[in-house]
Amino acid sequence: MEYVKNAWYVAGWASEFGDDLRRITILEENIVTFRNSGGNVIALEDRCPHRQLPLSMGKRIGDDIQCGYHGMTFNCEGKCVRIPGQENVPDSAFVDAYVIHEKHDIVWIWMGEPDRADVSTIFDLPQFTDPKWHAHQGELLHLQSHYLNVVENLVDPAHVSFVHPTTLGNAASENVPVHVKTSGEEIIAWRWIRDSAPIGFFQKFGGFKGNVDRWHYYYLHLPCIAAIDFGSADADLKLPEEERDKGVRIFALHFLTPVSAEYTIDRWMHLRNAAVGDEAASKQMDAMFKVAFNEDKVILEAIQEEENRPQKRRPIRIAIDKGPNVYRKRIRELVESERTQDLGAPVKPTYVLHD
Amino acid sequence: MEYVKNAWYVAGWASEFGDDLRRITILEENIVTFRNSGGNVIALEDRCPHRQLPLSMGKRIGDDIQCGYHGMTFNCEGKCVRIPGQENVPDSAFVDAYVIHEKHDIVWIWMGEPDRADVSTIFDLPQFTDPKWHAHQGELLHLQSHYLNVVENLVDPAHVSFVHPTTLGNAASENVPVHVKTSGEEIIAWRWIRDSAPIGFFQKFGGFKGNVDRWHYYYLHLPCIAAIDFGSADADLKLPEEERDKGVRIFALHFLTPVSAEYTIDRWMHLRNAAVGDEAASKQMDAMFKVAFNEDKVILEAIQEEENRPQKRRPIRIAIDKGPNVYRKRIRELVESERTQDLGAPVKPTYVLHD
Amino acid sequence: MEYVKNAWYVAGWASEFGDDLRRITILEENIVTFRNSGGNVIALEDRCPHRQLPLSMGKRIGDDIQCGYHGMTFNCEGKCVRIPGQENVPDSAFVDAYVIHEKHDIVWIWMGEPDRADVSTIFDLPQFTDPKWHAHQGELLHLQSHYLNVVENLVDPAHVSFVHPTTLGNAASENVPVHVKTSGEEIIAWRWIRDSAPIGFFQKFGGFKGNVDRWHYYYLHLPCIAAIDFGSADADLKLPEEERDKGVRIFALHFLTPVSAEYTIDRWMHLRNAAVGDEAASKQMDAMFKVAFNEDKVILEAIQEEENRPQKRRPIRIAIDKGPNVYRKRIRELVESERTQDLGAPVKPTYVLHD
Repeated sequence: MEYVKNAWYVAGWASEFGDDLRRITILEENIVTFRNSGGNVIALEDRCPHRQLPLSMGKRIGDDIQCGYHGMTFNCEGKCVRIPGQENVPDSAFVDAYVIHEKHDIVWIWMGEPDRADVSTIFDLPQFTDPKWHAHQGELLHLQSHYLNVVENLVDPAHVSFVHPTTLGNAASENVPVHVKTSGEEIIAWRWIRDSAPIGFFQKFGGFKGNVDRWHYYYLHLPCIAAIDFGSADADLKLPEEERDKGVRIFALHFLTPVSAEYTIDRWMHLRNAAVGDEAASKQMDAMFKVAFNEDKVILEAIQEEENRPQKRRPIRIAIDKGPNVYRKRIRELVESERTQDLGAPVKPTYVLHD
Repeated sequence: MEYVKNAWYVAGWASEFGDDLRRITILEENIVTFRNSGGNVIALEDRCPHRQLPLSMGKRIGDDIQCGYHGMTFNCEGKCVRIPGQENVPDSAFVDAYVIHEKHDIVWIWMGEPDRADVSTIFDLPQFTDPKWHAHQGELLHLQSHYLNVVENLVDPAHVSFVHPTTLGNAASENVPVHVKTSGEEIIAWRWIRDSAPIGFFQKFGGFKGNVDRWHYYYLHLPCIAAIDFGSADADLKLPEEERDKGVRIFALHFLTPVSAEYTIDRWMHLRNAAVGDEAASKQMDAMFKVAFNEDKVILEAIQEEENRPQKRRPIRIAIDKGPNVYRKRIRELVESERTQDLGAPVKPTYVLHD
Repeated sequence: MEYVKNAWYVAGWASEFGDDLRRITILEENIVTFRNSGGNVIALEDRCPHRQLPLSMGKRIGDDIQCGYHGMTFNCEGKCVRIPGQENVPDSAFVDAYVIHEKHDIVWIWMGEPDRADVSTIFDLPQFTDPKWHAHQGELLHLQSHYLNVVENLVDPAHVSFVHPTTLGNAASENVPVHVKTSGEEIIAWRWIRDSAPIGFFQKFGGFKGNVDRWHYYYLHLPCIAAIDFGSADADLKLPEEERDKGVRIFALHFLTPVSAEYTIDRWMHLRNAAVGDEAASKQMDAMFKVAFNEDKVILEAIQEEENRPQKRRPIRIAIDKGPNVYRKRIRELVESERTQDLGAPVKPTYVLHD
């Protein structure tokens, strides 16, 4: 299993980290985390270099971690500072330390070479800090499916008609083609469904009764973040594509964390330009999203099971797969470039497209 | 794991199939089944050629199946008839369709090349339609054991003395040798136990008190069907071998469906020349058979576990193994001939021996 | 997975064996055991050479075992004495028989070549039969961990400060170096902690209030038996090393039986020179040991899980590992010498050191 290592992943919501030692697993690496006395999240390789006991089974001695087997003690940089029973501490006594950055109540972790970590490349949206927008962190969705299958689903506007017929899609969009373009390390797949009945979501949230223009923009920020900009406006407005803020507009954000080859965590949140400050509206949206995302979970886990079985012939690709195809190709390129150490300069994303 | 593909297997009792999409698995192939509007059982490869979702997780649109992920739709022949988001449907958009035939309230499926399927080779017995005989479908016995182990047990009259000492066998038969012969694609193993106490089964069913002559004929129809003709008659009658209908005579039929390498389903039924039309008698026999077949299940699953472990030395074969030996050799030949595509003409079974 | 075969292992406490057939598993070999009519424990390969059914699923016919499938019958030496359906019994019809010896209420089994079994090499201690000492068999501790990890823990005095801080160790010993020497097929690791607070165990058992001299001697009898001699005496006594019997002295014995690559059974017992004949004291010690040994179990099972995962770099060894290092090296030598059949003479252990 290969992953893009030189990237920022979401280690968790800020609220998930406290004083206690806690193990998390990202890209198949076990990591012990805690907040030190300064309030900073510390993340170290969760395995003592001596007898391999997880350090998360040890205990904190101040801001250091003492292994629970023989008392070897490591500081916040992963350096061993004590070996009971001997005076000297060899250079080989260390664990890896991960670069951490906290932003917008999210703890970000850099899984690649530490000196390539650049916080300016962390995913951002101007709407996070815009007072006309309301941000709300949702829950963790645990998927027994490879992250490529999960991400592919998030750059695929076509599935909503069939997977979410009562929530995020309806029959009106079944045959509407999907547009795809790329911009830096971002892939955008989108379509407009003009002058048709509102989907279940916008009947409840937005209160649309008559026909609407509806849009779905899937912004995929490689390797593992999807920002789905979707919304509706009265069809009579004949809303131009660039004036989406005049309708009810929502970003459904999915921060995907590959845990292992068949396990991905989706931390989702939403941003909206309506019902700002209304917590009851946030709860209502949470409930609707949970129904919809569980519809995806059932599909994505079944696909994973099938992929684990022998195949008679190669899968076919169809017209709506343009987004997923571009995505998988780019991931393969990134993994290959890391493998060959030909890393080049990290690409900075541009977000002008989100307006 | 190798299977004989060019053969009719039992997909299920006719009553197991209805309007809803249902997955079954045979020879490690997942198959979606349903009865179409004409009442015919349809059987298709249960995996969309696009993103591999089981079609059984989709829904019926008339007699077609629509995939639950992106709406690709397949007709009863497995041909794709719709791909949402595009006009053309490429030839590569299909799933395999299986040949199905319904006979004697059993749904038969041909697992090999469709143009070799010949319904005249489906297992049959004249007693199925003889009004002097009573047929009764039993239950499904699920065995975590390779089908070769299960079938071997059904061409092995010697085990009944030890595995079924209170039901289908007793000590009188312990040392009675077994005869074996072949006839077309059938193997017959049999023995008579003359002038001895009745087994538990015939004490209850048949009401024998004194000594009886008892017979066991194991007809094995390759690859996976066993018809066990067994019965008893008063020892005083000195019944000749060919006049078994004058005693209480029962066929215990076992239709074995290999699901995967260590999972076999045994659909069993019985035919009898006594208590015709008496449903209470059928229930009584069901209960006795369930006790006995569960005795086999315990043995066959333990054997499978042992076969999965390393072996110190090769197993030995003994005199009573003649039937199993002939069976395994013939299966190897059939698998090998399919592998090399040297299929020859299918052998038609002859059933004169059953009279 | 490789094991030292030519060695005595503990098959069980004598009380674990009765008239019924019972399967045990040692070094991945399944063994059927029972006490025959003479009261001797019989141990045979638990697999019929015919169709591989475990003989433990058969039944006793006198002192023979009859297989539950086709009635093949084996005597206490593993020789087949009956094959139903045929007269002759070929030489290939046998199962392996294991050499068993009962001593000190323990059933010992020799897992190697039978003619190399020498009962004089079975582990012994003079204290077993000394009336000034009290022996008490404890319980079975089931560990999902490789036996090398478990044994290593038993030649490692350093871990007690961190794994058992409230029972068998305390902070006073954290930095005290460990001595190691070998004697025949025995490894001894030990240290004295002079003039410090008593550990939890000796606060409860021995009633020490003031400072004590405390010792831990780990005698490892290869491949799988540990005798831990530990005790305390008033610090004022300034007890010489060789006069440990003047303090409260305990042997915690661990008889380890490797079941399979990740499963080890630890049958532990204790011997003491105090509270002789006092069963309440035995129960109190049992309770204290169970707390402590479960502390080890948590560590040893976590380590096993980590060893099953890929490793970024080789584990490091530190000063306190001298005992484990000597142990692993000697096991590798023994396994290698068995592999190459260069067995040499078995080494007789010497126990003078225990006094």
